[in-house]
Amino acid sequence: MKLVKYLLLVLVSIQVNSQSDAEVLEKIYKASLTYGKSYEWLDYLSNQIGSRLSGSLGAEKAVEWGKAELDSLGLDKVWLQPVMVPKWIRGAKEYAFIETKSGRTTTVNICALGGSVATPALGIKANIVEVHDFEELADLGEDNIKGKIVFYNRPMQPDIINTFEAYGGCVNQRYKGAIEASKYGAVGVIVRSMNLRLDDLPHTGSMTYENLSVSKRIPSAAISTNDAEMLSSMLALDKNIKFYFKQSCKQLADVQSYNVIGEIRGSEFPNEYIIVGGHLDSWDLGDGSHDDGAGIVQSMEVLRLMKELNINPKRSIRVVMFMNEENGLRGATKYAEVAKSKNENHVFALESDAGGFTPRGFSFECSDAVYNKVLAWKPLFEPYLIHHFVKGGSGADVGPLKSDTTVLAGLRPDTQRYFDHHHASNDTFDAINKRELELGAASMTSLIYLFDKYGTSSISNQEQIKN
Amino acid sequence: MKLVKYLLLVLVSIQVNSQSDAEVLEKIYKASLTYGKSYEWLDYLSNQIGSRLSGSLGAEKAVEWGKAELDSLGLDKVWLQPVMVPKWIRGAKEYAFIETKSGRTTTVNICALGGSVATPALGIKANIVEVHDFEELADLGEDNIKGKIVFYNRPMQPDIINTFEAYGGCVNQRYKGAIEASKYGAVGVIVRSMNLRLDDLPHTGSMTYENLSVSKRIPSAAISTNDAEMLSSMLALDKNIKFYFKQSCKQLADVQSYNVIGEIRGSEFPNEYIIVGGHLDSWDLGDGSHDDGAGIVQSMEVLRLMKELNINPKRSIRVVMFMNEENGLRGATKYAEVAKSKNENHVFALESDAGGFTPRGFSFECSDAVYNKVLAWKPLFEPYLIHHFVKGGSGADVGPLKSDTTVLAGLRPDTQRYFDHHHASNDTFDAINKRELELGAASMTSLIYLFDKYGTSSISNQEQIKN
Repeated sequence: MKLVKYLLLVLVSIQVNSQSDAEVLEKIYKASLTYGKSYEWLDYLSNQIGSRLSGSLGAEKAVEWGKAELDSLGLDKVWLQPVMVPKWIRGAKEYAFIETKSGRTTTVNICALGGSVATPALGIKANIVEVHDFEELADLGEDNIKGKIVFYNRPMQPDIINTFEAYGGCVNQRYKGAIEASKYGAVGVIVRSMNLRLDDLPHTGSMTYENLSVSKRIPSAAISTNDAEMLSSMLALDKNIKFYFKQSCKQLADVQSYNVIGEIRGSEFPNEYIIVGGHLDSWDLGDGSHDDGAGIVQSMEVLRLMKELNINPKRSIRVVMFMNEENGLRGATKYAEVAKSKNENHVFALESDAGGFTPRGFSFECSDAVYNKVLAWKPLFEPYLIHHFVKGGSGADVGPLKSDTTVLAGLRPDTQRYFDHHHASNDTFDAINKRELELGAASMTSLIYLFDKYGTSSISNQEQIKN
Repeated sequence: MKLVKYLLLVLVSIQVNSQSDAEVLEKIYKASLTYGKSYEWLDYLSNQIGSRLSGSLGAEKAVEWGKAELDSLGLDKVWLQPVMVPKWIRGAKEYAFIETKSGRTTTVNICALGGSVATPALGIKANIVEVHDFEELADLGEDNIKGKIVFYNRPMQPDIINTFEAYGGCVNQRYKGAIEASKYGAVGVIVRSMNLRLDDLPHTGSMTYENLSVSKRIPSAAISTNDAEMLSSMLALDKNIKFYFKQSCKQLADVQSYNVIGEIRGSEFPNEYIIVGGHLDSWDLGDGSHDDGAGIVQSMEVLRLMKELNINPKRSIRVVMFMNEENGLRGATKYAEVAKSKNENHVFALESDAGGFTPRGFSFECSDAVYNKVLAWKPLFEPYLIHHFVKGGSGADVGPLKSDTTVLAGLRPDTQRYFDHHHASNDTFDAINKRELELGAASMTSLIYLFDKYGTSSISNQEQIKN
């Protein structure tokens, strides 16, 4: 029986190996677009489980679901990797208003930033000072800030084509705004939502107090872009308006959680690992369909498609569902620690954490030699309208694996709509387009297939490609 | 005074000409993304005017609005070009159900196809036969078709990456389904909506009876994809189920309408014309935001940005808002007729009629020599993630201008979501992303700028580009 099984395996391998890479990619895209599972999986994750902030019941359910789904794929190994994660809870819905001199109030849409402390139970009411960066804050100094709320209102720059770059140019207001404002005696922080669109939705996201003493920690919240514009206009008319907000969020003790991992054992180089992943946790306002349910189901689909299409990899392929990307990166840190302690040779790590939109290409963190090798694969992707290969950041969760020998990569989907939904209550399943999601999964599977077949050595693979 | 004006013009021209092409493109994109007007215009066209089927009040209002907006741009000339257009009206909302042997009925979502005749006032109830193409229909023949309704159910192929190609593989069912079915004595036609997604929305679109005698014209309607799937399943269980539908649409006499045209007179070669356009008419179910409100406002934006940025074109640049693309192409035909009769030398015509999604590139109908010239411009577009230059169909409205000397081109946006909205009630303004629309307008302006600057002669412009 064993011999028969072996011969069958050899036959299947020969069959796959006798196909050109172009033929294999065609099968991968066709399978993803005609009988893919990514969309159905995401429907369940988003609509049956929903939001899954680290330490929440949703996150726990997502771990169980992820493991059960991987178990059903017939992989060689599926397991949970324990990791302690922070648990922050939002509590009651936040409430805020602007109050004019005459006592008239206008409610505005805010949400606490992840990791923020609560306001006092009755809320905070104070004057509010608009600034656009930390320099402006420092120039104002304690005289103008003490006892007031600081309002960071630097918008994302609309003329930057890649919206992630525009995000990068603003996010320090959110992440470090409280710690900077508290230096000058501010009593609270309101941050313009990281959103290129004008709408009414506040966008949450992580912030830090670093080592700030507990007594100096001031509550921080995001305000919707429409309300940021209104607040700014009202301040231009009268600097003495007051801002009130109330939030009851809380940081609890760390709790037990898990990365979920599945593996197909490599047939030739089982000790060389290729991983593909996204993060299983999400913020609590939406259902995390784009951030990063999409990356999770696309990564699962990579291994499912390989099994489905009898692609028998030479190297060991793992899907990793990282826990706690949003507010701690504990899962990614743990995964890299364990990999290091076991001396596991990770040759390639691919992340999808930029939304489930139409894939445009990939970014790579690697040597020039490897990058040139990768560029030779570009023509294989052109029929699928994947045109954009760049050197650049790959992703937060594969980041801790960075080394001279590990090639890191990130899927690069279209970014124009991403920040309309990012960390907000409209990051929901209805904003996902099935085909776009499936094209991403197929693109990722294709890249993993090529890295598995040709390895990551920097020798030119031009001739191999021609086969 | 005239001399001063002339000198000023020369100064401005020198200023623009002294900028590199890369600098000009940067200004164009920045202007479109930071103080563009396309989105605001589309908001008005979609939400204040709404649907604008040829001959409707909406179309009439759109003509007035288009002319008034162009008048406000300070162009050299704005005018209406008269054209007679067909007027088809939908009448009361359609109604349809499936009836099983036991008499149980299930309502389904249909809409009359544009150009279809009505059913008798009481509707039609008949057996229904599913086919997938005209060959299958012919094989069944009169014996199996006579007195029945024909149900065309060939879906768009999901594994075709460019969804317009998948559309092209299906649309003959809609356009010629009635004429084919009537050959075998069918009493009506139901066509699966041209939609890659499974949902409840019927998608309309044009159909033809050609020269079929009036008595043989049978009513045709589209059914939603979900209902097409259900109907097919029910037919698999019982071929004797009945289908009922009722529609009261009507073709009226042709009415007067207009193409709306605006022009900036060329400074060096005023008798060489470059045009950019889309179609002002739309189907009646949604508000036509993607098809083709987007193309209209992007085309308007091209001329507005040129004025705004003091780009003083050498050639005459026209925006053309074509009337009646959807069900007659009368506006495009008229425009080309007039251009020919006046011996106007059209050197380049660019159309945007593939939705307001993220632009990916352009298609060109031209000689290889000109195409190679265009390819040399590609690096200028890469910072804006415009990667996809192809030879291929440009668009229906610029089509009649086709000649050996006129270069035709079409904007190629991302196509994945387009047919979710195409000709359906959800082709509405909320499905438009402001940035995606603006990126398209900037890409079009950039291409027009380059064609104006370098002309369409086939001489290599590599050296020009380097300036």
